[in-house]
Amino acid sequence: MKVLIIGANGKVARYFADFIKDDSSIEEVAMIRKSEQASYFEERGIKTVLLDLVKDPIEKLAAAMKEVDTVIFSAGAGGSGLDKTILVDLDGAIKAMTAAEQAGIKRFIMVSTFRTGREAMAMENDLQIYTIAKNYADEWLKNRTQLDWTIVHPGILVDTPGTGQIKVGMGNDVNEVPRQDVAQTLVSVLHHDNTIKKEFEILSGEIAVEEAVRSV
Amino acid sequence: MKVLIIGANGKVARYFADFIKDDSSIEEVAMIRKSEQASYFEERGIKTVLLDLVKDPIEKLAAAMKEVDTVIFSAGAGGSGLDKTILVDLDGAIKAMTAAEQAGIKRFIMVSTFRTGREAMAMENDLQIYTIAKNYADEWLKNRTQLDWTIVHPGILVDTPGTGQIKVGMGNDVNEVPRQDVAQTLVSVLHHDNTIKKEFEILSGEIAVEEAVRSV
Repeated sequence: MKVLIIGANGKVARYFADFIKDDSSIEEVAMIRKSEQASYFEERGIKTVLLDLVKDPIEKLAAAMKEVDTVIFSAGAGGSGLDKTILVDLDGAIKAMTAAEQAGIKRFIMVSTFRTGREAMAMENDLQIYTIAKNYADEWLKNRTQLDWTIVHPGILVDTPGTGQIKVGMGNDVNEVPRQDVAQTLVSVLHHDNTIKKEFEILSGEIAVEEAVRSV
Repeated sequence: MKVLIIGANGKVARYFADFIKDDSSIEEVAMIRKSEQASYFEERGIKTVLLDLVKDPIEKLAAAMKEVDTVIFSAGAGGSGLDKTILVDLDGAIKAMTAAEQAGIKRFIMVSTFRTGREAMAMENDLQIYTIAKNYADEWLKNRTQLDWTIVHPGILVDTPGTGQIKVGMGNDVNEVPRQDVAQTLVSVLHHDNTIKKEFEILSGEIAVEEAVRSV
């Protein structure tokens, strides 16, 4: 299957690119914003498409999704300002969903934040606006599209090596999770359609990724 | 009818309070954030309720809507920061809608911005984040609630005295409109249920407010 990764140059998505090197069933198209980001993917035999989620129109995003089966949204403003948070994490995500529907794609996998919902949005902390942006992007995906969505909610992302073992479910206490394990989970989600119209947290755990993904 | 005004201390809403002094069919409840804002309303025989749209939970907003027939959302962060724009104009608006539905209210009138939609959201200007916030609040009202909504889209708000004459419709070129005329339009919308599930721009014009409102 052909998978467009939006935010391909992010850390989780780079781990994803490494995983699918060994998975001939998945062909990645890496959507990147700067041409200097291309080499990482070219070295791995991955095609890139140069697009700006914020500045480019939905039609250009949809054109990049031609012959794509699945979109993974792994982009994020990541502390580059509240305006970017709204432009990328909220409006950019909704643009991507709209483009996917225009392109006739059904499958859309969203990398969300750990906790959304009213209680999380009411927390007056540095992540409040980010949480609101992610919350309403997820809401849009679930309720305003006809997409076959999956929403994953990773815990606190860390760069320690993945263990290949996670904990899934909802309502867990927050904890860390290696980005590498999140990436492996995304690969597994692509292979397991039981995850369609499901959302689940990903934390460090003791269950093999594939088994955990099968269980959701 | 009993009307809760969210953002009652704003300029448009203060004009509204003056209009309904002479309209015995409308009883305003002014939702204000600071106790020192109460005197303006008390002098006009208008009840106030002290609530913070951002900090107070939906349940408290819903409690303030008991026995209310209509909610007018006229709040706005008004340049107090991008965080406040998201907290008030997007999430605050959605909290108000949710509270209205919890309280069993049907009628909800939204004071939006002049132009929403994809083209407006793509304009890289100082209003971009505000436009996105208002856009998705309007979208929520139209598509995620069962409320009998009306959305008004005023042009550039000015403080020159109202003329009692406006122009309505959609797709007009932007132009000024006195806040006083917007307030008068809101009063008229309350009296004309043909405006339910309609949205329209309000600009300076040459048609009497009531006639214009009847025409939408």
